[in-house]
Amino acid sequence: MAATAAKKTSRTPVPLNGVNTPTLLATINAVGSQPELAKFQFRAASRWISGTHSQSVMHGFSGAGGEHRHIAAYKADGDHPGVLCGADAGPTPVEWLLHALASCLTAGIANIAAARGIKLNKVEATVEGDIDLRGILGLSDEVRNGYQGIAISFEIDGDAPAEQLNQLVAQSRARSAVFDCLTNGVPVSIGVRTPAMAA
Amino acid sequence: MAATAAKKTSRTPVPLNGVNTPTLLATINAVGSQPELAKFQFRAASRWISGTHSQSVMHGFSGAGGEHRHIAAYKADGDHPGVLCGADAGPTPVEWLLHALASCLTAGIANIAAARGIKLNKVEATVEGDIDLRGILGLSDEVRNGYQGIAISFEIDGDAPAEQLNQLVAQSRARSAVFDCLTNGVPVSIGVRTPAMAA
Repeated sequence: MAATAAKKTSRTPVPLNGVNTPTLLATINAVGSQPELAKFQFRAASRWISGTHSQSVMHGFSGAGGEHRHIAAYKADGDHPGVLCGADAGPTPVEWLLHALASCLTAGIANIAAARGIKLNKVEATVEGDIDLRGILGLSDEVRNGYQGIAISFEIDGDAPAEQLNQLVAQSRARSAVFDCLTNGVPVSIGVRTPAMAA
Repeated sequence: MAATAAKKTSRTPVPLNGVNTPTLLATINAVGSQPELAKFQFRAASRWISGTHSQSVMHGFSGAGGEHRHIAAYKADGDHPGVLCGADAGPTPVEWLLHALASCLTAGIANIAAARGIKLNKVEATVEGDIDLRGILGLSDEVRNGYQGIAISFEIDGDAPAEQLNQLVAQSRARSAVFDCLTNGVPVSIGVRTPAMAA
């Protein structure tokens, strides 16, 4: 795809794009010498509100050898829209997947651009997910429950040739946690506790 | 797993758990007779703000033969936490996956319970995702970028025996769009537009 390989320069890293590049590179080096620092656990706590409406809180997580908390207990709703008999109290669960993908790839683009000394002016993305609801509605065993496919389109402007901007996206994709989860799948275990267990 | 099969009764559907059960069942019947109504497209539009911080808007979507809009243009942030050199302006992209999973399975539980005439008193879930960041930090080619695994634990209380409450979760899992996407993977295509194309 690329006619010329990305040039590696021995540039001194400087903060760029709102990324503290020296700190980021120092963090990567620290984890490289102490791999146990790389083990993270992220969490969400969800509660059902009514109908198809629920709310999650994302606050604590562990990693880098300790427990952490976000600066706020971030809350998010999920619901089905009116056309699917929900109250439309928030985005649908499948839209949250699209947001996860866009935010992961965009964060990677900004970090990689900073590490490569490329100033970004704009990164925008539109994400579309196509789904045939005959799966989740139980109307067909041949239609999958999830998306048939997801398409994400980036529009990027930065102080570099188009080829280097394209390479930012390619490298972000190559190291994106959400892209990996969505394209390759993740083992998910489900447990259930009921009060009857204590009865 | 279940010693006795779920009983099918010829109960008249009534609204329950905040679910308008008659409308939900009528919607499923309508889609059953007109499969083209089942084709939906969900969307997110994302823009980079600074560093690893971006924001998505989820508003329009298509389905049931037409265009729709949520009752609000729902916005959501994504960022990396301070320990990963971000500004912590929102949950991480990988936490959004956990919220998507919890909200999808919970919505299914509520719908299925309503269809089965089971009144729910409580549905709560904790979701944990374990990830080794040596993947995304580029420190190991043997460590995957995404979660090693996700575990979700439900706590359910409702007016039914434990076995029937367990079956709600099993059926929700069997028809969950997000569970399918996360466990089986989805094809994701990525496009890039740069201003240099017009230069």
